[in-house]
Amino acid sequence: MAELEVRLAEAVGRRPGFASEVAAEALSAGGKRLRPLLCFLSSRNGDDELLLAAGTATELVHMATLVHDDLVDGARMRRGVPAAWSVFGPGAALSAGDYLFACAFAELAATENSRAVGTLADACLALARGEAMQRSQTRKPETTIDDYLERCALKTGKLFEAACRLGSGGDPDLGAYGLALGIAFQIADDILDCAGQTQETGKIPGTDLREGTPTMPLLLAAQQDAIVRSALAGGPLEGALVRVAGTDALARSREAALDYAAKARSCVGSAPHREELEALTYAVVDRAS
Amino acid sequence: MAELEVRLAEAVGRRPGFASEVAAEALSAGGKRLRPLLCFLSSRNGDDELLLAAGTATELVHMATLVHDDLVDGARMRRGVPAAWSVFGPGAALSAGDYLFACAFAELAATENSRAVGTLADACLALARGEAMQRSQTRKPETTIDDYLERCALKTGKLFEAACRLGSGGDPDLGAYGLALGIAFQIADDILDCAGQTQETGKIPGTDLREGTPTMPLLLAAQQDAIVRSALAGGPLEGALVRVAGTDALARSREAALDYAAKARSCVGSAPHREELEALTYAVVDRAS
Repeated sequence: MAELEVRLAEAVGRRPGFASEVAAEALSAGGKRLRPLLCFLSSRNGDDELLLAAGTATELVHMATLVHDDLVDGARMRRGVPAAWSVFGPGAALSAGDYLFACAFAELAATENSRAVGTLADACLALARGEAMQRSQTRKPETTIDDYLERCALKTGKLFEAACRLGSGGDPDLGAYGLALGIAFQIADDILDCAGQTQETGKIPGTDLREGTPTMPLLLAAQQDAIVRSALAGGPLEGALVRVAGTDALARSREAALDYAAKARSCVGSAPHREELEALTYAVVDRAS
Repeated sequence: MAELEVRLAEAVGRRPGFASEVAAEALSAGGKRLRPLLCFLSSRNGDDELLLAAGTATELVHMATLVHDDLVDGARMRRGVPAAWSVFGPGAALSAGDYLFACAFAELAATENSRAVGTLADACLALARGEAMQRSQTRKPETTIDDYLERCALKTGKLFEAACRLGSGGDPDLGAYGLALGIAFQIADDILDCAGQTQETGKIPGTDLREGTPTMPLLLAAQQDAIVRSALAGGPLEGALVRVAGTDALARSREAALDYAAKARSCVGSAPHREELEALTYAVVDRAS
């Protein structure tokens, strides 16, 4: 993983300029590096160079989406530090995100593995579709749980899946593991947004409700509570988050996340890093940030 | 070129959703399809499938940058119709741009030509760097002509170069042709912004001055005229565009565009479509839109 950090910095720094500076700044904020970890843990024996390139590329794509998401959401904080756009301006953040996407493809294209590039491109398509889906679901408390889950698959699951496929040379079981793990991760993230503390998550809780993003806990709570429903539709927010915690929505969402985690475990089979992959399925649900 | 239109629509429509709809709308506004044309004219005999994929990919990347540029610039019009963000909202436009980038890479990855993917990734990196460079040059009348030309190379030249390289299977002379042609094209574009009519260009003239984007005609005029210099730095705009036309800045910029066009012609050598490629070097400078 130390090698990965070096590689990430190199990939971003190779073409100097303002876009590279903004991207490097976003990179330095750190992160869990979960997608590269998935690449490494999915490998059987593997081509080290391809693994490193794949880990770097998936993390760069993830960074790109964070930079772009914060820009559109107007989120001023990311991992406890100011978001790129709020420091450098919206135009710089947009270019930096585009730059990070291009860095990812440049990194993977250098391995001359077209199948790998195709896998990454598919994941990027899914990400963009998931982002767009989120826009069209905004302030819609009538969003179904199925539509929410599809969004989770597109926004988070598909890049986890890609990381596992890239790491394992296209193993469909490990791909399915990544997809289910990503959905579990996203549900857990959405629970944290309802219940977490800024100190721990580096994010301000209640962001989804404020922005009208219908997550599983908010949708389940809205089904039971008219005030939450109205807040999610753009009405007054006062007290709504406390009311979410007063329903069984957080517990039921946690159950759903655990179900997806179990589904992920059922796909691990005889992977060499089976234990670590299984441990991850618990860790993504039970986390504080 | 008819086949290309079908292919473009297919590439964008393959993954349904909101991002695809917004992207399809942006596509339907049309365009010169100059980058695919460069692919086709650069080919020697060529793999038709690769040519079509390369033409589609370069146009999709171009569309992506237009959608993102309009978003950040707040430009409400594009080719005489409203820009994507002003119809669908900023978030949708951001996702649609990301979606178009991913479509481009998916298209090229399907050809299993890693070198081609690398060429496209490099062009995307250049585009993002050029965009960022434009931000950092904004409202700076002290920007040098060399820095302006570097921006043109990154923002426009590199994708023209990529189109020619992709079409010719990597011919460096045709790459150099594309780069020079792109710079000529960009200078001509910047002249049109000072002198063109909305009716013809589909854009509102004077946009660069209003946004403080230092183009060659504006920089040359600013060297001679304090009112233009102050307008470019963010001061009052009244009468500044008329004063640009009162200097020799437009004529000198046109000379520079013609020089780059001549440079492009000098690279054509014995290309099979030599005549068409030469004709393009005149057409990009002498155009009304």
